[in-house]
Amino acid sequence: MKNQKQFNYKLILEYDGSFFAGWQRQKGFATVQQCLEEALLKVTKVACVTHGSGRTDRGVHATGQVAHVIFNTDFSLDRLRRGGNFYLHDVPLRILSVEKMPFDFHARFSALKRHYCYRLLNRPSPSPLRHQRVWWVPKKLDLAAMQEAASFFVGHHDFSAFRDAACQATSPLKTMDMCQFFEENDELHLKLSARSFLHHQVRIMVGTLVKVGQGVWPASYVTQLLKAKVRSQSGPTAPPGGLYLTQVDYR
Amino acid sequence: MKNQKQFNYKLILEYDGSFFAGWQRQKGFATVQQCLEEALLKVTKVACVTHGSGRTDRGVHATGQVAHVIFNTDFSLDRLRRGGNFYLHDVPLRILSVEKMPFDFHARFSALKRHYCYRLLNRPSPSPLRHQRVWWVPKKLDLAAMQEAASFFVGHHDFSAFRDAACQATSPLKTMDMCQFFEENDELHLKLSARSFLHHQVRIMVGTLVKVGQGVWPASYVTQLLKAKVRSQSGPTAPPGGLYLTQVDYR
Repeated sequence: MKNQKQFNYKLILEYDGSFFAGWQRQKGFATVQQCLEEALLKVTKVACVTHGSGRTDRGVHATGQVAHVIFNTDFSLDRLRRGGNFYLHDVPLRILSVEKMPFDFHARFSALKRHYCYRLLNRPSPSPLRHQRVWWVPKKLDLAAMQEAASFFVGHHDFSAFRDAACQATSPLKTMDMCQFFEENDELHLKLSARSFLHHQVRIMVGTLVKVGQGVWPASYVTQLLKAKVRSQSGPTAPPGGLYLTQVDYR
Repeated sequence: MKNQKQFNYKLILEYDGSFFAGWQRQKGFATVQQCLEEALLKVTKVACVTHGSGRTDRGVHATGQVAHVIFNTDFSLDRLRRGGNFYLHDVPLRILSVEKMPFDFHARFSALKRHYCYRLLNRPSPSPLRHQRVWWVPKKLDLAAMQEAASFFVGHHDFSAFRDAACQATSPLKTMDMCQFFEENDELHLKLSARSFLHHQVRIMVGTLVKVGQGVWPASYVTQLLKAKVRSQSGPTAPPGGLYLTQVDYR
């Protein structure tokens, strides 16, 4: 085998998840991975495989998803970004930046921390300008109670009560570095950071926190759930349209 | 004629302008006024005429448009808001609030001040999540120069260079109370306040300010334009998707 030179590119991506059937290629559905790979094929004339930092679900947005892709040719960063975006013109997905990385960089396995933001709109009427961009909750929420409940998630816990039945992770143990609400104009943003998350973890956490905000459960119920480890006792899975993968950190 | 009791309702509206052919009724086009009146008809079973604080153009958004509507029946505020929104479910228009006003309240003629915001996204790649929500300007803008240029608009001026040929206003003299850029996350927001505006005035002002930001013209060119009063010497009309009618003030 010839000693073939290879070039590893890190891509930062933004997409409107409401258009896509999630990140991962699926026959018969428009997915982020498929649209990205097809656009890169048009630019480079070479078929490629992109690897995301993680799979975002159907309807979940990203403002800072990270992927890597390996080519045998030394393409210019600007050509990949601009050319890729040119061929992506008819889908709501754009390459925000392209960077050359050492060969061992892997968007998924090299990730040290993932940051998510969940946007809640708590007011009597929905927002047509933010349709599928926020979770609209019409009844007034108790922010102080939600803030307290959110703080119980921080640290190392068994998140079995906050994982979807379909979750394939080997362990339900995760370390939450941040889980905090911020008031952002007329919205409530829950910002979460951890090395990794279970399937639907953020959305089940949000569904539970909203139950607390509605006064259905006290804030302390979250600590019970973390001990009980039973999915059926926690809140509903919040809608995907409020969730954003905002950033992935690497060394 | 019988002494008929009448009830005057003030509505605050949010809409996604990219769906509508502007505010005003037009045969063959979906307009804000038409959709609103049809929804209110379904709620109240009475035909009505709504009056907006002003006509927003095709593609221009509102987060705080104000309209009034007069009925002979004393409808509950909640019924108008919730019922109206129910029947508006398939168009991106919502009633944010309903308030009962004195009979002489007129959404257009009683308005003391109108507030607009124009959103610019200045970065190399466009934002799929903010498609038709911001004006994407890829090349780096000189914010300090734009800020200075914007300040020259404040005060009482002849805005002839910033009015569309189709403008029907009797006078080009307007008093700009505020015209200032704010950095809002990764966006630049130009916030403008005045009693009233000429047709396309904000968008031509923004088109001109972006030329200044691109270094095509110095900031002082704005003062020349205010004196020259010639539309053909000012910048292009900025796209409607960046413009938001955010608030209308009354006594």
